[in-house]
Amino acid sequence: DYPKKNAEILSGQYGINLLLVGLSLMLALSYRGSAVKEEHILSFLISLMILQIIWMLWYIIRKDRQKCFVSEKDSDAGTSWLRGGLTLLALISLIMDAFRIGYYVGYKTCMSPAVGVYPVIHAVHTISQVHFLWFHVNDVIKTFETFERFGVIHAVFTNLLLWCNGVISEAEHLLDTHKRRLLDLGYTNVTVGDKEPHCNCTTNICSIFSHSLYYLYPFNIEYHIFVSVVLFVMWKNIGRIIEYQRHQKVVMRTKGLFAGPILGLIALASTITVLVVYILQVGDSVETRESAVTMFYCYGIVMLLFMCLAGSVGLLIFRSDNLPLDYSKNPSRKLDADLLFGTAIGSWLMSWCSILAVISATTRPVYGWINFMYSLLIIIEKYIQNLFIIESLHRKEETNERDEVETIPEIYSVSAGSSLSLASSYNGIINRAFENQDKVCVSLETDQEDNNQVYSHTGSLPEGSISLPTRSSAKLSKRRRVLKNIAVFLFLCNISFWILPAFGCRPQFDNGMEEKTFGYAIWTTVVNVAMPLNLFYRMHSVASLFEVFRKV
Amino acid sequence: DYPKKNAEILSGQYGINLLLVGLSLMLALSYRGSAVKEEHILSFLISLMILQIIWMLWYIIRKDRQKCFVSEKDSDAGTSWLRGGLTLLALISLIMDAFRIGYYVGYKTCMSPAVGVYPVIHAVHTISQVHFLWFHVNDVIKTFETFERFGVIHAVFTNLLLWCNGVISEAEHLLDTHKRRLLDLGYTNVTVGDKEPHCNCTTNICSIFSHSLYYLYPFNIEYHIFVSVVLFVMWKNIGRIIEYQRHQKVVMRTKGLFAGPILGLIALASTITVLVVYILQVGDSVETRESAVTMFYCYGIVMLLFMCLAGSVGLLIFRSDNLPLDYSKNPSRKLDADLLFGTAIGSWLMSWCSILAVISATTRPVYGWINFMYSLLIIIEKYIQNLFIIESLHRKEETNERDEVETIPEIYSVSAGSSLSLASSYNGIINRAFENQDKVCVSLETDQEDNNQVYSHTGSLPEGSISLPTRSSAKLSKRRRVLKNIAVFLFLCNISFWILPAFGCRPQFDNGMEEKTFGYAIWTTVVNVAMPLNLFYRMHSVASLFEVFRKV
Repeated sequence: DYPKKNAEILSGQYGINLLLVGLSLMLALSYRGSAVKEEHILSFLISLMILQIIWMLWYIIRKDRQKCFVSEKDSDAGTSWLRGGLTLLALISLIMDAFRIGYYVGYKTCMSPAVGVYPVIHAVHTISQVHFLWFHVNDVIKTFETFERFGVIHAVFTNLLLWCNGVISEAEHLLDTHKRRLLDLGYTNVTVGDKEPHCNCTTNICSIFSHSLYYLYPFNIEYHIFVSVVLFVMWKNIGRIIEYQRHQKVVMRTKGLFAGPILGLIALASTITVLVVYILQVGDSVETRESAVTMFYCYGIVMLLFMCLAGSVGLLIFRSDNLPLDYSKNPSRKLDADLLFGTAIGSWLMSWCSILAVISATTRPVYGWINFMYSLLIIIEKYIQNLFIIESLHRKEETNERDEVETIPEIYSVSAGSSLSLASSYNGIINRAFENQDKVCVSLETDQEDNNQVYSHTGSLPEGSISLPTRSSAKLSKRRRVLKNIAVFLFLCNISFWILPAFGCRPQFDNGMEEKTFGYAIWTTVVNVAMPLNLFYRMHSVASLFEVFRKV
Repeated sequence: DYPKKNAEILSGQYGINLLLVGLSLMLALSYRGSAVKEEHILSFLISLMILQIIWMLWYIIRKDRQKCFVSEKDSDAGTSWLRGGLTLLALISLIMDAFRIGYYVGYKTCMSPAVGVYPVIHAVHTISQVHFLWFHVNDVIKTFETFERFGVIHAVFTNLLLWCNGVISEAEHLLDTHKRRLLDLGYTNVTVGDKEPHCNCTTNICSIFSHSLYYLYPFNIEYHIFVSVVLFVMWKNIGRIIEYQRHQKVVMRTKGLFAGPILGLIALASTITVLVVYILQVGDSVETRESAVTMFYCYGIVMLLFMCLAGSVGLLIFRSDNLPLDYSKNPSRKLDADLLFGTAIGSWLMSWCSILAVISATTRPVYGWINFMYSLLIIIEKYIQNLFIIESLHRKEETNERDEVETIPEIYSVSAGSSLSLASSYNGIINRAFENQDKVCVSLETDQEDNNQVYSHTGSLPEGSISLPTRSSAKLSKRRRVLKNIAVFLFLCNISFWILPAFGCRPQFDNGMEEKTFGYAIWTTVVNVAMPLNLFYRMHSVASLFEVFRKV
């Protein structure tokens, strides 16, 4: 058998190289003088998707034939709400594919066939992938390991490339909008790229298609990155030995939820208001633009202050009750923590650049120091939120009182049972003359057995919680209620901070301060690299906070 | 006590933010219109270094006072040869600081005092840091964990920032050289940045200082990145419980080394020849430039073919003897593997870009397809080499025959002992009438015990090696000899591939093909980001291959 570590490296390196080929194509496309055109990238993506579809088909057919085998499942990966969310995002992606096909039909005389084939294949790919994820995402694969590692990692990186492709299209579109606004405001040294096809649309609704596409893009982008994360967990699980399976159903309790949802919904409503006002005002004149940016920053500061407060209260509650942490191996949780940490870097970099721009500016607009405050709070908020989420995910699930009562006797019955059975099997054969000696021997043995039993069960035993008196338990449930409210509030706030940049509210471009310090080229690059990370961070913390809410 | 996971995130986030502040300063500096000047970055670095020196002093003094405590050591971290290598690099850094001070003295009338203070503080920092690493690098810290995590991570990121600063200076210098060459060859639309101070040198030897500096830079850069890796392992070790300490001294055996060193030295000698010829010819005329680039690629292809061959033979040898892999927890080994994997991405990206440039070019120079071959081989070579090194690092150290003989009886004695003692303690109390029933019971029990004992010992037992006959052992030592030769050969080849780009042999700029496909701006960015990763990859695989050589 081929060593596991080696198969991991072998397939991981294949995946990374796939990504790099795609990236080099995209880099070449972003340079105007290059011979690489859009259809080349699309053909590359089409072939990757077809390969993935074939692999998934093969996997499903093989799995169906071997139905007799009981396969292991990782209960932590691919929870049902995650599958539901993915299906929803996939549906929106399918609508987008339909729009794209419509757009192509209108312009088909002057467009490469690849532009028409791409959405068709993408739709087939989306449907088969959702089917695959729905039934097989928490499989722990044990056969054909090396080959299947290649299949799964191919799927991971295909989705990552589709994400990159979406991100680049989105960034181009937003840059174009930004440039058009600048043109409207009277800046003359701006050239807007010409991306329209060179023929007339034959169906009269092409512009509707192309406009609606940009409202669907953010969902498509999130769909692909989420799928690749979920598949990556599946890849990590290949060949893993699951030590201990809890088949514990977490019942979601919504009792005592009040302040969190109310405040969160207020935040969400004001976010949508701010978004609409911002987009209407920012392209109007220089004055309305300044007031729009100022409004955005003031709104952001209030939101972030509340979020910091909520996170800190949550951390204080964790400090006050000393429950032990759960350090058992769990790839999906480790990945969650790493992703929160890693993707926060994007917005931290943007914030530090903004802070530097404000400090080093010679003339500051009205919103200069407000921008400074906002950026500082963004850094602090992510700092606290990461601590809160990661600690929540690492806490042992607090089992119900009912569960505890059930667990304890079980242990006693096992250990007592084993000592009893041993004693009874010796009962008839014990020579009375050696009774004392014998008793010592048996008790030593049973002690040892007890230890073994207790040791093997500590995984499921909530250590500190057995001896808690009822009053402390009431306190605990009050704390739990506060934590639930905090999780819901942060959940809705993170959705708000995802909506704003996803639908075009990017004051990093409109305030003009950073461009003076870093220059247009560097700043655009920084924002275009950091913003997708920031968007993913927000979406990922939404998912993690939902998990926190369920667990508390 | 504060949860461990939380302290990790807390300090990790602090470190990342430190890095991002520095990066934003460097980004601002690279834009000409910015208010950020070099002295700002230098002051920032100076304050970070002073903070680190204070922390190290505090740590050493506290450690000295608590001498009575026996502290744990991680024997895998900071081996003596690594310390030796670091000291050597540190010495070269000190020479560089002396040159910088001399350069500042010459120009002190028109330079910021920060430029003069920086090398002084840097020298103090280097000396104290080497002292710290020499005595404390493999400490496993157990007290004041949260506070000390901050200290260590501060040191890690201070060194990482010093690395970034070095890399940027180096890249600027090489870009300037490249532009000057283009000017000499008759290209007129190139502007060379003016980095010279605006006054005359007072000591007459300033130009000697500034020229020699650029030959010392590569060593200084490697010094800082290595220190931060070593300190990162120390950070990972904080609060760790070391399960199993082998105090096994690895004796380095050099018997049977012949082909590897000879071939490697030939490779190294030809590398230096190629480097000198390349640098002399590339700036001369367009023809000599083309011939220099062609020569470089041909030389590279031959080298890479041999390296691929050596790596593949090594992997085949691993396949043929089925020794079990060692999966015990070991932060420094995990980091080694991750770094090899992660830093290879840089040169893979460059290679894929080159391949794309060759394929999409409309007119190809003589070396077009040779460049294609070279880039493809670079990808394959790193692929194979990573597999080889990571598998070598994960293999259990083959213990001597003496050790094996000692281990086996111990296990038998334990299991036999336990079954014997049980049997004897029952001997006198067994009723003859129930003999059969009793025997079954006892044997079941002892079986269980045996299993337990064997299970708890497998950690230290070299599994497959017990039943090896002597002939197989001779075969093994022959294989080992081949592996040793391969390791030495790859070691010297990697040094060769580090020397070339580190001292200015960068055909990625000189062949002009990629610039046509990606444009000057994008391609320069790609090379400047990917090249430091590539250099670090080579240096790191040199270190890892030395480790492989010691272990085999």
